[in-house]
Amino acid sequence: MKTDIQIAQEAQMAHIKDVAASIGINEEDLEFYGKYKAKLSNELWEKVKDRPDGKLVLVTAINPTPAGEGKTTTTVGLGQAMAKLNKKALIALREPSLGPCFGIKGGAAGGGYAQVVPMEDLNLHFTGDFHAITSANNLLAALLDNHIQQGNALQIDPRQIVWKRCLDMNDRVLRNIVVGLGNKMDGMVREDHFVITVASEIMAILCLANDLEDLKERLGKIIVAYSFTGEPVTAEQLHATGAMTALLKDAIKPNIIQTLEHTPALVHGGPFANIAHGCNSVQATKMALKLSDITITEAGFGADLGAEKFMDIKCRKAGLKPDAVVLVATVRALKYNGGVAKADLNEENLDALARGIVNLEKHIENLQKYGVPVVVTLNSFVSDTEAEYEYIRKFCEDRGCEFALSKVWEKGGEGGIELAKKVLETLETKTSGYHPLYADELSLKEKIETIAKEIYGARGVIYEPAANKQLAKIEEMGFGNLPICMAKNQYSLSDDAKLLGRPTDFDIHIREVYVSAGAGFVVALTGAIMTMPGLPKVPAADGIDVVDGKITGLF
Amino acid sequence: MKTDIQIAQEAQMAHIKDVAASIGINEEDLEFYGKYKAKLSNELWEKVKDRPDGKLVLVTAINPTPAGEGKTTTTVGLGQAMAKLNKKALIALREPSLGPCFGIKGGAAGGGYAQVVPMEDLNLHFTGDFHAITSANNLLAALLDNHIQQGNALQIDPRQIVWKRCLDMNDRVLRNIVVGLGNKMDGMVREDHFVITVASEIMAILCLANDLEDLKERLGKIIVAYSFTGEPVTAEQLHATGAMTALLKDAIKPNIIQTLEHTPALVHGGPFANIAHGCNSVQATKMALKLSDITITEAGFGADLGAEKFMDIKCRKAGLKPDAVVLVATVRALKYNGGVAKADLNEENLDALARGIVNLEKHIENLQKYGVPVVVTLNSFVSDTEAEYEYIRKFCEDRGCEFALSKVWEKGGEGGIELAKKVLETLETKTSGYHPLYADELSLKEKIETIAKEIYGARGVIYEPAANKQLAKIEEMGFGNLPICMAKNQYSLSDDAKLLGRPTDFDIHIREVYVSAGAGFVVALTGAIMTMPGLPKVPAADGIDVVDGKITGLF
Repeated sequence: MKTDIQIAQEAQMAHIKDVAASIGINEEDLEFYGKYKAKLSNELWEKVKDRPDGKLVLVTAINPTPAGEGKTTTTVGLGQAMAKLNKKALIALREPSLGPCFGIKGGAAGGGYAQVVPMEDLNLHFTGDFHAITSANNLLAALLDNHIQQGNALQIDPRQIVWKRCLDMNDRVLRNIVVGLGNKMDGMVREDHFVITVASEIMAILCLANDLEDLKERLGKIIVAYSFTGEPVTAEQLHATGAMTALLKDAIKPNIIQTLEHTPALVHGGPFANIAHGCNSVQATKMALKLSDITITEAGFGADLGAEKFMDIKCRKAGLKPDAVVLVATVRALKYNGGVAKADLNEENLDALARGIVNLEKHIENLQKYGVPVVVTLNSFVSDTEAEYEYIRKFCEDRGCEFALSKVWEKGGEGGIELAKKVLETLETKTSGYHPLYADELSLKEKIETIAKEIYGARGVIYEPAANKQLAKIEEMGFGNLPICMAKNQYSLSDDAKLLGRPTDFDIHIREVYVSAGAGFVVALTGAIMTMPGLPKVPAADGIDVVDGKITGLF
Repeated sequence: MKTDIQIAQEAQMAHIKDVAASIGINEEDLEFYGKYKAKLSNELWEKVKDRPDGKLVLVTAINPTPAGEGKTTTTVGLGQAMAKLNKKALIALREPSLGPCFGIKGGAAGGGYAQVVPMEDLNLHFTGDFHAITSANNLLAALLDNHIQQGNALQIDPRQIVWKRCLDMNDRVLRNIVVGLGNKMDGMVREDHFVITVASEIMAILCLANDLEDLKERLGKIIVAYSFTGEPVTAEQLHATGAMTALLKDAIKPNIIQTLEHTPALVHGGPFANIAHGCNSVQATKMALKLSDITITEAGFGADLGAEKFMDIKCRKAGLKPDAVVLVATVRALKYNGGVAKADLNEENLDALARGIVNLEKHIENLQKYGVPVVVTLNSFVSDTEAEYEYIRKFCEDRGCEFALSKVWEKGGEGGIELAKKVLETLETKTSGYHPLYADELSLKEKIETIAKEIYGARGVIYEPAANKQLAKIEEMGFGNLPICMAKNQYSLSDDAKLLGRPTDFDIHIREVYVSAGAGFVVALTGAIMTMPGLPKVPAADGIDVVDGKITGLF
């Protein structure tokens, strides 16, 4: 069997100008990065902005398991299938992060015959967007520490610096560090922290900004620290806004690449859904809606994280209205949720399926709370059985969801026709009554508790004393009307990664809360969630090589 | 008067495919990054490698002063002038670093009407080469700390880790840090350090590697730490080589851009000359020699740093033979070396000139030690006087150097015709007897002392006890035959930045010595030289902005 990278490397890609032309983008509106990648010009939006929007379909999933679900694969395959049905469809995805690529998760280009290409470029530096974000993030940090070094006119309290440095790398030793050691010329000693680039507020800003002007305004609002008297200090006060904007002026332009079947895909921005808001850029999604009849986008990890934030942050803030949701599961992952060990997933096990399907059930219920029609799809595996499929199909239909099998991993777009037809039928026959889960006017605690109870199924919320103080301070500063961006492990609906299925009788623990004033949300860290991942015992990097100029071992 | 960025932004650039075509590069050998930047394919070298080499001209300078010298400006202007004389000339430059760009020095695209463009792209992310180096450097660091975290099978001594993290940023607080704080899952606590990306050994490797295979082999040889028993631990032992190579597979391809007059320029790699070896990539230089009749390249800072390393490291290792050297000075900088304050440099002052010209004199003598013909050029300023010019002209001619005025800042290539003619005359009438300054067989201390005495004019060399131990260890490990890469401040021939002109009766202080086994040299840190710069009181970032989509304030 061929590996994903072999399939990707064997692909006959079309020149990206031809891919772009298929949705009416002229060469003058493309900035090429080689033959197969391009950025869309700033001028393109002006040309298309008065067109009517197409339909918006979100692809999300059950909680991820080591068994694999294939959300990106399904998103890409569904796009390919729509094209096979002669629909003008466009895919909108996030860019992968280098961190997991060398860590445990691998890349994020889809899989099998449902991939976006060039896969290696996408999974490595792509068009440099993440590097630009890293640079802007760390320039702000350097300017902050330099401000203190050069006299600290703003009276920044070194104990109350909230801006962190970042790297697009899984590097646990950078979580908690002390900087400024040495002598007077080496800066002021203080505790500091690195986060992974995808967790940087600048990533969120890039993904939520409407345009370059909006980006600049948001960058200026970033709160980097508090003064000795407790006043917030912003990036603008450090005179960092202009230089940061200069670093991001290309990164803010959406990227276009193609699927293995030449379907166009806008791939732009990439916040993780566990420690950030988990959606591709607003600009890419809005552009896709103007350029196509159906935009298929995805949000990260399970529907409790990516989809919740898609609905409650991205759609709320950007004025988007999703018309349907595709919820991806696999028979194997449902059995895993039902307690089957990874080695035994190849055997039919209807009992385990019944025990594990409660995870799917909870996500269906959750998504229905947003008023958007749901289509459940199973990303099929050779080991799946008909009895298992039928059990799940009935389960879904009993809950008012459409159901379709998907074989896009094996067959590309052809394998997604059944799913595509179900999605089209849903778009034609069901009306979306999208609304966010909670109102802006609720207090921050009420919002957190709504998400915890309604989406996670928690009994209640327990706040650390520090979090209580932070919440009070954030509301006092006037940010109480912002939505919440929960930071939670992706494996469980709870904040304990080990509780699979549909846990009950648990509390959500809020450890720390801070405001991302530029992004426009309040981040609540739950449980033991880390904003800088670590590498596993045998990192994926171990297996990556370049042989005769070709990359191997990337997945 | 227009600023450099205004001139650059008003430029009518040619499509890079047309610029490349002017030196016989076909479109199929270009990988476009937008319309005005491209990388050269790996296949191009195979096509041109059997051609005869053109002539190689190095542009270097006196020690830099706040008065400005204009080495890159002269390099670019000379290339433009050669084209005006219908010579097939190619410029080979280093890529600028983001650090100084937001710090004090500004960018490095030349100035006035002798610039390479697109200037903003070049000075910001360009084609992402530095970001790739940063990523590869930090992946290696993360794998190293992860190896310790996961059991430390190689018995790495955390007190003897020599690999440092890096950022392309001036950020003093990262010079000396403690990492791994927190608990068991946050890694092993140890002291660590960040260097600026241009000082990373990976930057040197990229610049000295012949091709991707050579790059990979060199990466594997990097010594990252020593074990408890004192054995070196390499990147290869950490299984980092393949993944690092994958990150660098595009960065190793030379970039092509153009001057304001459409002269092609290969811009690739960018080690600083004070804390690294200061030359653009060997690949770019070798490629330029095949593609043109005259390659004009530069090396960083004064001839004591960049040119010395160009001759003793780059040419020695890559088998290059420079045919002529252009030594750049300004009347103002010579007067500054003669003790005139910056505010008074506009006034004619032949006495000060006579006092300061000793700096030029020493560099002439130094360059003549390599057996290469020298042309001195003055980058002219409006405040210069005829009497000053004549004094310098006679001074140079008395020392066997050709002399030419250059007005490329004001007039572009037209202003460099006099210089270009002198260079052509030199190439036609004088033979280069290039040889490196010292033999491979000398001991490391003998090499250091040769550079200190012959080039810097030092009385002697004083070693810190740690440096003595390190030198012994490096020779014991079998690296005694490598050349020396001196790390020294750029302002003075000595290791005390305040001693201008031609200091005498001083010693060079060697603080620390380490081997860059992948790059193939031994680094000797002198005086108080830092491998991570800081930001000044008012950083250049303060003045940078984006207005109506256009970058302002970049210089």
